[in-house]
Amino acid sequence: MSHTAQHEGNSKGPFDDLLVIDLTHVLNGPFGTTILCDLGARVIKIEPPGHGDDTRTYGPYVGDKSLYFSFVNRGKESIVLNLKHDEDRAIFLNMVRQADVLTENFRPGTMAKLGFSYEALAEINPRLIYASSSGFGQTGPLSTFPAYDTIVQAMSGIMDETGFPDGPPTRVGTSLSDLCGGVFMFCGIASALYARERTGQGAHVDVAMFDATLAFLEHGFMSYVSTGNAPQRIGNRHPFMAPFDVFAAADKPFVICCGNDHLFGLLCAAIGRPELAADARFATNADRIAHEAQLKAELEAALSRETAAHWLEVIHAAGVPVGPVLNVEEAAKLPQTEARNMLIEAGGLRMPGNPVKISGYPDPRVRTGAPTLDQHGAALREEFSALPSAQPTPPTPQTDIAR
Amino acid sequence: MSHTAQHEGNSKGPFDDLLVIDLTHVLNGPFGTTILCDLGARVIKIEPPGHGDDTRTYGPYVGDKSLYFSFVNRGKESIVLNLKHDEDRAIFLNMVRQADVLTENFRPGTMAKLGFSYEALAEINPRLIYASSSGFGQTGPLSTFPAYDTIVQAMSGIMDETGFPDGPPTRVGTSLSDLCGGVFMFCGIASALYARERTGQGAHVDVAMFDATLAFLEHGFMSYVSTGNAPQRIGNRHPFMAPFDVFAAADKPFVICCGNDHLFGLLCAAIGRPELAADARFATNADRIAHEAQLKAELEAALSRETAAHWLEVIHAAGVPVGPVLNVEEAAKLPQTEARNMLIEAGGLRMPGNPVKISGYPDPRVRTGAPTLDQHGAALREEFSALPSAQPTPPTPQTDIAR
Repeated sequence: MSHTAQHEGNSKGPFDDLLVIDLTHVLNGPFGTTILCDLGARVIKIEPPGHGDDTRTYGPYVGDKSLYFSFVNRGKESIVLNLKHDEDRAIFLNMVRQADVLTENFRPGTMAKLGFSYEALAEINPRLIYASSSGFGQTGPLSTFPAYDTIVQAMSGIMDETGFPDGPPTRVGTSLSDLCGGVFMFCGIASALYARERTGQGAHVDVAMFDATLAFLEHGFMSYVSTGNAPQRIGNRHPFMAPFDVFAAADKPFVICCGNDHLFGLLCAAIGRPELAADARFATNADRIAHEAQLKAELEAALSRETAAHWLEVIHAAGVPVGPVLNVEEAAKLPQTEARNMLIEAGGLRMPGNPVKISGYPDPRVRTGAPTLDQHGAALREEFSALPSAQPTPPTPQTDIAR
Repeated sequence: MSHTAQHEGNSKGPFDDLLVIDLTHVLNGPFGTTILCDLGARVIKIEPPGHGDDTRTYGPYVGDKSLYFSFVNRGKESIVLNLKHDEDRAIFLNMVRQADVLTENFRPGTMAKLGFSYEALAEINPRLIYASSSGFGQTGPLSTFPAYDTIVQAMSGIMDETGFPDGPPTRVGTSLSDLCGGVFMFCGIASALYARERTGQGAHVDVAMFDATLAFLEHGFMSYVSTGNAPQRIGNRHPFMAPFDVFAAADKPFVICCGNDHLFGLLCAAIGRPELAADARFATNADRIAHEAQLKAELEAALSRETAAHWLEVIHAAGVPVGPVLNVEEAAKLPQTEARNMLIEAGGLRMPGNPVKISGYPDPRVRTGAPTLDQHGAALREEFSALPSAQPTPPTPQTDIAR
């Protein structure tokens, strides 16, 4: 299924031959389909009449472009379809017949009401990979529970795990559950596509933001399993290693990561406190964990005498892992960010690049921007209005269509 | 490449036919290869002599099993190989010849020093997908900078974005950068495997925890691009919508997510403060953002009179998205977690399940546990000691081997 002219600005990639029909909206689904797009797939975004994807109305804006929308829709084509009207439904079904992948993140049940359940669409295209992303999944008692990122973060336990012992549960400062759901949706699609090469059959991929966030719980979940008690918030320190935390220098904080006794000895020497390595309270990692607050106080007494820049240089030179605490601007301006092509331009806007680097495929610094609403509507209506000659006649839509 | 007896406890999945040689250790790489394993691949974990993967020595423990190790190594086979000794190198190269995927997360340059660069291994197996995961990537000035999760969180900006305006930068309460790197490594592998079906060629996948975390920065990165200033920490509230935050009830906090004026009106009515919806300070979302602190005070004055459980029922019944703030124990015990099979057992230990649900493949509640050190060593040495008859003779190892 070939690329149209609109798409030729995009890189070639491992998914060059794919046609993706993208019904997802807001952040979670579009984040997943942007990875497909970055890796070469042709992604046609279907938007509802009116203002299209809600995120087109979200700030911040540059000119009339929503950055929120632009970030997760770069490189896609846009067509407005009213999926309750016969003419547009016919175009949609023609797209489905030719598509490799369909993605949707409506509330579970919505697609079936439209007559577009997996079962219905698999009948007209058995090779279709149909990916559903949702807050809590297609099954279970919370399946249709409203699921904004903040709700899923709150209910998964990750908010309770983040923050300081004397502070409140803290939301991860990015829409973590949305993004986890999106990237795992991509994982499911890519896996099902690989399997299709063997089986010739499509599949239904069902990914939940909630499940995806649980998979990211890691040590907190394991501690609960081990002790039967929920883990406590521990701020910036490591649960099992010390010193492994943010420390205050004279001017600002920085990070020291000492994973073993050898590194701890090097650290103590580097900061002019070699006697700490011989202190019985700090002899082993277990000792250091047991006396973590005392250790931090001893270290910060020394560290507070010089700037973070000083200590980063001195401690790094001693072979101990350290790093600065950077804000987003500083992170974006790191030479490493440039060298890794992680600050790209799409449609004249700068945004994070594609983290999936694969040899043999270009990783362009300038990518096609996000489409304006219905930008490719006329061309797509023409392309998908006539039935391809090799295809069977269209089926009657399901009788349970919501109108 | 068929499954051995050791593997038959695992589910079948889309990657059933794959042999993965896994040199990754600690968290980041093993998280990625666990997804491959969950989805059916045979994953052989190669561990160094001594105590094997470092995480075998990390708590918490159940009996003699490290939960940390067990979580990200379930279903894998283990063999101890000394990659600097000729006999073990020969076994390793025999594995490589037959493998579909090789994964490693050594510091960049280490594999080349061992004579196992992508180029060297592609010569003996051109179909090999060779995936490198690292802190900062295989290229760029920070390529070999020590990269623990906390350092990458600190340097990516996500720590600076997380937390409250009057508090410090806050580490996400889970090893987010490790996990992001691992899941994007999986994305690269699955994509390259799909492409191999067309090209017959392997590829080198190069994923960095740093890049992966930048891709997760979302609104903070976009705000910086838009305004030229780094975003400020905003605690638990939403950057663009209000009320969309954690609110205090009489007993504990809970989440309300009001994305538009209609929902705001329903909320005000539900909590017995209908006049707030008519208040000029709160008329539109932009007004509510501009008077966010006043709005929160008004809402909490009402909400603090009843319990969170009361408000969750009342506000949910009104059609406004709400949710409890749960700890990990409460999240694990949600009926939804059970219904989605997200609390599984592997090797007698409970842990998060596989969030990638694909129709046509089982999603077993009981999976094979993580291997003991060298558990499959004898069997694997036998399986991979003799050259497969169809394979060419072994190449001479590179001359730059580090010994």
